[in-house]
Amino acid sequence: MNRNRLLELLASVERGNLSADEACEQLAHLPFEDVGHARIDHHRALRSGLPEVIYAAGKTPDQTAEIFARMAAAGSDVLATRVDEPTVAAVLAAVPQATHHPQARAMSLRQTTAEISGHIAVVCAGTSDLTVAEEAAITAELFGTQVTRLYDVGVAGIHRLLAVREQLSQAQAVIVCAGMEGALPSVVGGLVGVPVIAVPTSVGYGASFQGTTALLGMLNSCSPNVTVVNIDNGFGAAYTATLIARAANHSR
Amino acid sequence: MNRNRLLELLASVERGNLSADEACEQLAHLPFEDVGHARIDHHRALRSGLPEVIYAAGKTPDQTAEIFARMAAAGSDVLATRVDEPTVAAVLAAVPQATHHPQARAMSLRQTTAEISGHIAVVCAGTSDLTVAEEAAITAELFGTQVTRLYDVGVAGIHRLLAVREQLSQAQAVIVCAGMEGALPSVVGGLVGVPVIAVPTSVGYGASFQGTTALLGMLNSCSPNVTVVNIDNGFGAAYTATLIARAANHSR
Amino acid sequence: MNRNRLLELLASVERGNLSADEACEQLAHLPFEDVGHARIDHHRALRSGLPEVIYAAGKTPDQTAEIFARMAAAGSDVLATRVDEPTVAAVLAAVPQATHHPQARAMSLRQTTAEISGHIAVVCAGTSDLTVAEEAAITAELFGTQVTRLYDVGVAGIHRLLAVREQLSQAQAVIVCAGMEGALPSVVGGLVGVPVIAVPTSVGYGASFQGTTALLGMLNSCSPNVTVVNIDNGFGAAYTATLIARAANHSR
Amino acid sequence: MNRNRLLELLASVERGNLSADEACEQLAHLPFEDVGHARIDHHRALRSGLPEVIYAAGKTPDQTAEIFARMAAAGSDVLATRVDEPTVAAVLAAVPQATHHPQARAMSLRQTTAEISGHIAVVCAGTSDLTVAEEAAITAELFGTQVTRLYDVGVAGIHRLLAVREQLSQAQAVIVCAGMEGALPSVVGGLVGVPVIAVPTSVGYGASFQGTTALLGMLNSCSPNVTVVNIDNGFGAAYTATLIARAANHSR
Amino acid sequence: MNRNRLLELLASVERGNLSADEACEQLAHLPFEDVGHARIDHHRALRSGLPEVIYAAGKTPDQTAEIFARMAAAGSDVLATRVDEPTVAAVLAAVPQATHHPQARAMSLRQTTAEISGHIAVVCAGTSDLTVAEEAAITAELFGTQVTRLYDVGVAGIHRLLAVREQLSQAQAVIVCAGMEGALPSVVGGLVGVPVIAVPTSVGYGASFQGTTALLGMLNSCSPNVTVVNIDNGFGAAYTATLIARAANHSR
Amino acid sequence: MNRNRLLELLASVERGNLSADEACEQLAHLPFEDVGHARIDHHRALRSGLPEVIYAAGKTPDQTAEIFARMAAAGSDVLATRVDEPTVAAVLAAVPQATHHPQARAMSLRQTTAEISGHIAVVCAGTSDLTVAEEAAITAELFGTQVTRLYDVGVAGIHRLLAVREQLSQAQAVIVCAGMEGALPSVVGGLVGVPVIAVPTSVGYGASFQGTTALLGMLNSCSPNVTVVNIDNGFGAAYTATLIARAANHSR
Amino acid sequence: MNRNRLLELLASVERGNLSADEACEQLAHLPFEDVGHARIDHHRALRSGLPEVIYAAGKTPDQTAEIFARMAAAGSDVLATRVDEPTVAAVLAAVPQATHHPQARAMSLRQTTAEISGHIAVVCAGTSDLTVAEEAAITAELFGTQVTRLYDVGVAGIHRLLAVREQLSQAQAVIVCAGMEGALPSVVGGLVGVPVIAVPTSVGYGASFQGTTALLGMLNSCSPNVTVVNIDNGFGAAYTATLIARAANHSR
Amino acid sequence: MNRNRLLELLASVERGNLSADEACEQLAHLPFEDVGHARIDHHRALRSGLPEVIYAAGKTPDQTAEIFARMAAAGSDVLATRVDEPTVAAVLAAVPQATHHPQARAMSLRQTTAEISGHIAVVCAGTSDLTVAEEAAITAELFGTQVTRLYDVGVAGIHRLLAVREQLSQAQAVIVCAGMEGALPSVVGGLVGVPVIAVPTSVGYGASFQGTTALLGMLNSCSPNVTVVNIDNGFGAAYTATLIARAANHSR
Repeated sequence: MNRNRLLELLASVERGNLSADEACEQLAHLPFEDVGHARIDHHRALRSGLPEVIYAAGKTPDQTAEIFARMAAAGSDVLATRVDEPTVAAVLAAVPQATHHPQARAMSLRQTTAEISGHIAVVCAGTSDLTVAEEAAITAELFGTQVTRLYDVGVAGIHRLLAVREQLSQAQAVIVCAGMEGALPSVVGGLVGVPVIAVPTSVGYGASFQGTTALLGMLNSCSPNVTVVNIDNGFGAAYTATLIARAANHSR
Repeated sequence: MNRNRLLELLASVERGNLSADEACEQLAHLPFEDVGHARIDHHRALRSGLPEVIYAAGKTPDQTAEIFARMAAAGSDVLATRVDEPTVAAVLAAVPQATHHPQARAMSLRQTTAEISGHIAVVCAGTSDLTVAEEAAITAELFGTQVTRLYDVGVAGIHRLLAVREQLSQAQAVIVCAGMEGALPSVVGGLVGVPVIAVPTSVGYGASFQGTTALLGMLNSCSPNVTVVNIDNGFGAAYTATLIARAANHSR
Repeated sequence: MNRNRLLELLASVERGNLSADEACEQLAHLPFEDVGHARIDHHRALRSGLPEVIYAAGKTPDQTAEIFARMAAAGSDVLATRVDEPTVAAVLAAVPQATHHPQARAMSLRQTTAEISGHIAVVCAGTSDLTVAEEAAITAELFGTQVTRLYDVGVAGIHRLLAVREQLSQAQAVIVCAGMEGALPSVVGGLVGVPVIAVPTSVGYGASFQGTTALLGMLNSCSPNVTVVNIDNGFGAAYTATLIARAANHSR
Repeated sequence: MNRNRLLELLASVERGNLSADEACEQLAHLPFEDVGHARIDHHRALRSGLPEVIYAAGKTPDQTAEIFARMAAAGSDVLATRVDEPTVAAVLAAVPQATHHPQARAMSLRQTTAEISGHIAVVCAGTSDLTVAEEAAITAELFGTQVTRLYDVGVAGIHRLLAVREQLSQAQAVIVCAGMEGALPSVVGGLVGVPVIAVPTSVGYGASFQGTTALLGMLNSCSPNVTVVNIDNGFGAAYTATLIARAANHSR
Repeated sequence: MNRNRLLELLASVERGNLSADEACEQLAHLPFEDVGHARIDHHRALRSGLPEVIYAAGKTPDQTAEIFARMAAAGSDVLATRVDEPTVAAVLAAVPQATHHPQARAMSLRQTTAEISGHIAVVCAGTSDLTVAEEAAITAELFGTQVTRLYDVGVAGIHRLLAVREQLSQAQAVIVCAGMEGALPSVVGGLVGVPVIAVPTSVGYGASFQGTTALLGMLNSCSPNVTVVNIDNGFGAAYTATLIARAANHSR
Repeated sequence: MNRNRLLELLASVERGNLSADEACEQLAHLPFEDVGHARIDHHRALRSGLPEVIYAAGKTPDQTAEIFARMAAAGSDVLATRVDEPTVAAVLAAVPQATHHPQARAMSLRQTTAEISGHIAVVCAGTSDLTVAEEAAITAELFGTQVTRLYDVGVAGIHRLLAVREQLSQAQAVIVCAGMEGALPSVVGGLVGVPVIAVPTSVGYGASFQGTTALLGMLNSCSPNVTVVNIDNGFGAAYTATLIARAANHSR
Repeated sequence: MNRNRLLELLASVERGNLSADEACEQLAHLPFEDVGHARIDHHRALRSGLPEVIYAAGKTPDQTAEIFARMAAAGSDVLATRVDEPTVAAVLAAVPQATHHPQARAMSLRQTTAEISGHIAVVCAGTSDLTVAEEAAITAELFGTQVTRLYDVGVAGIHRLLAVREQLSQAQAVIVCAGMEGALPSVVGGLVGVPVIAVPTSVGYGASFQGTTALLGMLNSCSPNVTVVNIDNGFGAAYTATLIARAANHSR
Repeated sequence: MNRNRLLELLASVERGNLSADEACEQLAHLPFEDVGHARIDHHRALRSGLPEVIYAAGKTPDQTAEIFARMAAAGSDVLATRVDEPTVAAVLAAVPQATHHPQARAMSLRQTTAEISGHIAVVCAGTSDLTVAEEAAITAELFGTQVTRLYDVGVAGIHRLLAVREQLSQAQAVIVCAGMEGALPSVVGGLVGVPVIAVPTSVGYGASFQGTTALLGMLNSCSPNVTVVNIDNGFGAAYTATLIARAANHSR
C-alpha cells in the first residue's frame, strides 16, 4: 500500500536510517500521482460501489474475453456492453458461467451478493428502443439497483403512459429512452418529481439523422428535471441513475 | 368564360366579320398563358375561396401599403402578414379602416360577408409561441374558418392538454405550434382523428437552433396524421388547414 | 369491460353494499387511464376507419410475421411496410394469401369490402422515386382510397406535368414524392387547389445528403398549400391524404 | 374540491337520489383530467418543494413584473431568470424588496425560511462562464441548496482544479459550466463519485458555434457520471442538482 | 410550324369547311403542352446536339440494358454513366459493340460521325479524382468535344500546374475536379480567361465529409469565372462545358 | 520589357561580355514570376475585356472611394458592388459623375464606348430577389452585355414562366436568381438549350437557412445545363454569363 | 519554498520533533497540487518566455484595463487582443504609454528589451484578412519574433505568391490567414519546407458560413506540413509559430 | 540536369553556335516550371529530409505495390499508410523485406541509416485510438525521429496523465490523439511548453459524429500551443512534429 510505503520511508527517517535530505529526494521522485490515482479510484469505489465495465465495441473478441476473465478471476462482478456474436463466443469460451443478454447486447457475471439499493424505472416507447433500454436496465441491475421496466408507452398514445404513472412515481430516478422525435422524456418529466435521464436512441430514418433529432429534442426539453446523455448510451444513463437512486435510497 | 370568348372569336370568323389572319393575330396575342393563369387562379379561387395574402417581410412599408390599398379598393378581403411598425403606419395611412393584430404581426380588412365554413383548432404551449399561433388563427379567420384557440397546453403538464381533449376532437383540422423540442404535435396527433399541421416556432435558445430542433422533431413524429410546414409559418398552416376544414365541412 | 366495472361499483353503492367513501377511494385507484385508452382508440378507429399498419423495419421477420398473422386472423385488413426479403418469406409462410408489392416494399391482405371513398393523386418524377410513391399508393389503396398514379413528370420537362393537369385537378389531395432538389411539390402546388403533401425521397447523390436537400426545399415551398413529411415517409403521406380525401369525399 | 365533488355524487347514489346508471353517465363526462392536473402538480410540489421560476426571456417587462408580483403576494419564494435591464426596472417598481443578481441575470425574493438541505458545487473555468454559473448558483440557493463556487479552474491549468479536489469531493452533485472545448466536466467527472451535470456555455468564437462544440464534447464525455443540459441552461442544471442533493442529504 | 397549323385551321373555318364549334373543340383538345414539349426538345436538340444520357445508378442492370439497346437500335450515340459490374455485363449482352470505360464507370456507343466541335480541358490533381474526371471527359467526347486531359496537377505542387498553363489557355472551357480542400479551381480560374466548371469529388476522409468541404470551398472561390456542380457530377460539368465550347467554337 | 531584358542578356553572351556561367547565374535569379504575372494579367484582359470590379463589402467608404476615383481617372469603366449608404456618399463626393443603382447596391461609371456583345437573360421570381438579380444585370451591362430582365416568374405560378419562354430562348446564357426552395433554375434549365447559371439568394426564413436550402437545391438540379455560384453572388454569375455570351456572340 | 517546507518537515522527523505517523498525516494534507501548479507555470515561463496575454473579448473595459495596468506595473511586456473602442479608452486612461494597433484590434506595452529570436512570415490574400493577420503579427512581435508580412498574395493570382517565394523560404514557420475557400495554406505549404499554421478567417459571405468553409478546407489540405487553429485565431497561430521559430533559431 | 541544360544552351551562344535571338526563343519555350519544380522539390528534400509517403487508401493493391517496389529499388526509405489486407499481400509479394505494422495500418522499408534527430511524444487515451497513434509513431520513426509512446492516459483519470508529466516535458513536440470529446490536447497543452499537434480520431459513437466532435473541441482548445490536423491524420501530425523536433534538435 502506498500509505504503508510512505510510512516506511518516514520510519526510516525516524530511525535515523535515512537523512531528511535523502528522504526529501526520494519523495520528490515518488510517483505521487500514483498515490493520487489509487486514492481517487478507491474513493470512487468506496462511494459508488460501481465496478468497472468493459466497453467491447472498440476491442477484439480476444481482448474483451481476456479482460472479462481477469476480472472474473478477481472475484468482481463483471459487465461487458456492446458485445457482438464473436465476442459472446470468446467470452463464453473463457468464462462459461457468464450470462449473455442478447437484447441488451451485454454479458454479465454476478459474483458478489450486494443487496439491492435504490430503485429506478426504465421507460421506452416500443420494440425499436429495447436494445438501449435493456443496456440501461441490465447495467443498473448489475450495479445492484432495482429496475422497473415500462416498455410500451409512447407519446402518440398518451393514455398508456398515464396508466403507469403510479409505477413511475415510485422510482428514485427515471431513465427514458426514445428515438424519432424524442418527446417522451418531456412528458415523463412532467409526471414525476425525480431526475429524468434522457437517452436518445438511433432509431428512426430520414430526418432522425441516426438519433440526432431525438438528442436535440431532449436537450430542449421543457421539463427542468431532464438531463441528457449521448445517443444510445444506456450504460451512462444507468450509471448516473444508480448514483442518484443509491443516495436517495440511503435516506429512506 | 374563356371558352365563350374563344367561341365568340371563332363565330366572328364563321360569320365573315373577322378574317382568318386577323383571328390568328388576335389569338397569337391572346395571353393564353394568362388565360391559363386566370383559369388556374380562378379555379383556385373558385375551389378554395382564399384571397391573396401580402407577405410584408420582403417589402418596404410603401410597397405593402400600396398593394394593400389596391386590393382594398377592389373590394377584396385583405391580409398582410409579418408587418413591422413602419408598415403598420403606412398601411393605416393608406387604408384607415384596416385592423392591426399586434400579437399576430398582421393587418386585415374584411369586406366580404362570407359565412363561416369549417372549424379548426390552433394549439400552442405558452406565451412564447403566441405570435405564430395568432398568425395562423388570424389568417384562418380571414379565410372564413372558425378557430378554437387552445393556448396554454404543453407536454410537460400533460393534464392541461387532456383537459381540452373534447374541444380538440371537434376540429376538422388542428394546427399545433411548438418551439423547443416540438413534441406537442405528436401528443395531439394521438388524441385526434383529423390531420394535424405542425408549425415549428423559433422559440428557444442554445440547441433549439432557431426552431430547427422543433422542425426535426415534428418531421419524426410517431403520429401518422402529422405533416409539417416551415419554421414560424403560421400562414401556410392556416392555408392548408382551411382547405381541409372546408372540404370536411361541406360533408356535414 | 371498464364501463361495466364502473357500473358494478356504482350498483354496489346503490345497493348499500359499499359506502360513498369506500367507492370514492376505489375510484381514485381505478386505472381510469385504461378507460381513456380504450375510448381514444375507439374514437380514432370510428372516425378514420384506418387499420393499424406494421412498420417492419425495426422488427425481425418472425415478429412481423406473427403480428401479420394475428391481425389476419382477426379479420382485419393488414398492411406491412418496409419488408425485406426474409420478412416476405416469413409472412408468406404464415399467411399464404398475403400479397407482396415488391416496388412498394410492402405486403397487404385485403379482407374487408369497404367501398372506395376519396380520391388522391400520387405524383413523382421518375423511376428512382417509385419505391416511395408506391408505398404511398399501396397504403392509400388499402385504406380504401382511389389512387391516380402520375409517375413520369419532372420539373426539368415541365410540359409533361402540364399534360396531366386535368388529372391532377380531380384529386382531393395530392402526394408528391421527389428527391434531388425537391422542386416538384411547389410546381404542383401552384396547379391545384387542394392540399399537397410533399414526400422528400432519399434519391440523389452528393449534396442531396440522403434526401435532406429535398426535405429543406419542400419546407421552403412558395406554394402555401404544401405540407411536408419525413424523408421516404410514403406511409405517413398516404395516411394524411386519406384523411383529407375522405372528409372531402363525404361532401360530394 | 374535486374529491368533494366525487364524494357528493357518490353520496347521492348512496342516498338513492341518483341511480347507478345516471352516476356512471355523469362520471363519464366529469373532467377527470382536472383531477389529474391538480394531483400531479401537488405531487410535484410535495416531493420537490421547488417553487415555479419565471423564465423572463420570452416575456415583456410588464408580463414578468406582473407574474413576479402575483407570486410575491402569495408569499412564495420567487425567482426570475434571464432578466434584461427594462425587466429589472419593471420588477423593482412592482416589488421593491426583490433582489437583483446582475452577474446571474436573475432576480429573486426569499420569503420562506426553509433550512438548507443538500450541498452542491458549481464549477467553471473563468470569467466568461460566470453568467451561466451564477444562474445555476442563485437558482440552487433559492431552492435551499448550499452552493460551493469553484470558479477559477480550467483544464489548461489542471493544477488549479486538483487544488480544489477536496472541496469538490464534499458536494452531493456537481454542476460544471464550460464553453470552448467543454472538457472540464470529463476531468471533474473523473475526480468525484457523484453525478456531474454539464452545462455548455455559448462562450467562445469561430468553431465554438455558440456553444455547440462544448455541448457535443460534453455528450461524448468519457466519464460515465456526466449528464448534459442545453447550452447556457444554468437553471435546469440547478434544478436537477437540487433534486439529487436533497435526496442524498436526507440520508445523512 | 405551329402558326401555320393554326392558320390552316382558321382558314378552314373561314372557308366554311369547319364550324366554329368544331374548331373550338379541336383547339381545346390540341395538346399545346405537347407542342411545347416537342418544340422545346427539338429546340434543345437542334441547338446543343446533345443526345440523352442514361444515368444507371438508379436503375437495374436490365432496365439500363433495355434503354441502351433501344437507343442503339435508333441509331443514336448512346452513353450510360455510373454503371456497375452487373450493368456492364447486361449492356454488353444486349449491345456487344458498346464500349466500356472502366475508369469513368461509363459505357458508350458512337454511331454518328459528327465532327469535333469545341475544345475543353479536364483538370484534376491525382489518381483519386480520376473516376470523376474521366466521367466528364468521356461524356464530353461522346458529345463531340475535343478534350485535353491534365491529370497530374495539384495545388501543393503548384509548378506542375504552371507547366501546363499553355495547354490550359487553349481550352474554351475548363473542368476542374478536386476533392479534399477543393482549391484547384480557384488557382486554375486565375490562370485562364474562360469559364471554369468546378466539380467537387468525394475523395478524402474525416473532415472532407464526402466532398462537402470541396464543394463549399469551390462555391467560395475568389476567381469570378468559377461555377460549381454537385459532388462527383462529372456528367453535368461536361454537359455545360460542351455547350460553352460549342458556342465559342462557332465563332472561330 | 522582359523579353527585351532577356535578349540583352543573351546578346551580352553573344558579344562575349558575359560568360555562359555568369548568364546562367543571372537567369537563375531573374524574377521570372513577375514576367508570368504581367503576362497572365494581360492575357486575361485581352481575352475577356472585363474590367476589375470593386467589392465594397470588405472596405471602408474611403477605401472604396479612393479606388473608384483612381480607376475613373485612368479612363476605365468602373463598377463597385455591395455599396452601403456611406460608401455611396463617399464615392459621389470623389466621382460626382458616378451612377448609383440602389436596387443593385452598386455604383458604376461608364467611360468607354464598347459596343454591346452578347445577350443574356436574368430571371427571378419576385421582389425579394431583385437585389441580387439587379447586381447581376448591372454587372453584365457594364461588361457590355445586353440583358433581358424577366423578374416576375416563379414556379408556383408556372404559366408566368411559360409566357416568357420565347424571350428566354433568345439569350445566350441565362442567370436565374431564386431563394426559398431554389426550384426555378431546374424549370428554366428544362426550357432552354444554353447554360443556366443559378444564384441562390438569402431570401426566406426558417429552414431556408439564409439561402443554404436554395443553394443545395440548385446543386441537385435535374437539368444538366445548370451550374451554381455562391449565395447572393450576382456579380460572379454575371461574370461567367458574360464570358459565355461573348464567345457565343462572336459566332453569329 | 515548497521544497524547503518539505525539508523542514523531514528535518523535524530527523530531530525527533515529529513522529513518522504525524509527518505522514501532514504530508497527506499538504496541498501538493500547489507545488505542481507553481512548477508547471514556472516551467512554461522558463521554456517559452512568452508572457500572459489578455483576451479582452469576454471582459468589460474596466476589467481589461485593470489587468493591463497590474501587469504593466509588474514590469512585464503586456498584450491585449480583441479590444473594442471603449476598452482602448479605458486602457489608455490607465496606462497612457500603451500602444494601440487598430488594424490588429490589439494593445501592447513593451517594457523588456529581449532580443529578437526566430523569424516567421505572416501571409494573407487581401485587405479583408488583415485584422487576423495583424493580430498574429503583433502578437509574434511582442513575443520577440521577427515577422515578415506578405499581405497581397492570393491563389487566384498565383504569380503574386510565386514572386515572394524567396521571402517565404527564409521563415522558420509560416502563418497563413485566409477566408473564403481557404486554399492559400495548401499552396504555401507546397512552397516551403517548414511548418505552416493555417488560420481560417471569417471573411466571406453566403456559403463561407463565417469561416467554416475556410476551416474545413484547411483541415483537408493536401500539404502535409499544414496544421490549423480556430477561425480568426491569429493569437494562437502566433503563439505556436513563435515556439517553433525560437527552437529553430537556437540552432543557427 | 536542368542547370546543365541551361549551361549547354548558354555555352552554345558563347561559342557562337546559337544566336541570342534563337536562344531567347528556345528559353521562352523551355519548360521553366520544370526547373522550378525540381528546385522546389529539391529544396524541400534538402531542408526536411522527409521521403515521399504512399497514401494507399485511394489506390489498388497493385498500384501501391508497384510504387513501393519502385521506391524500394531506388534505395529510399519507403512508407505506405492505410494499407488493407490485399495491399499488404501485394506489397510483400513485390518487396518481401518490407515490414508490416498491423496496428498502424502501415508498411515500411528502412534502407538508409540516418541517425535519430529530434524527439517527440505520441499520447493517446486508450486502445481505441491506437491505430491513429501508431500511424503517427511509425511515420515519425521512419522520418528518423525518436518517439516516446504514452498510450494509457485519459482526462477522466487525470492522475495517469500527471504520472507521465516528466516524460512529456522531454519531447520537442507532442502529438495527442483523442476521440470522443477530444479534451486531452488541452490538458497536455497546459503541461508542456512545446507545440502540441492534436489529432482527432473517429473513435466514439452517436454524437461523436465520426470524430467531428473531437475535431471541434480541439480547435477550441484553451491552450494556445495546440494546433489541429484532420480526423485520423496521424501521418500529417507526424510530418509537422518531425519538422519541429528536427529544428529544435539542431539547437541542442
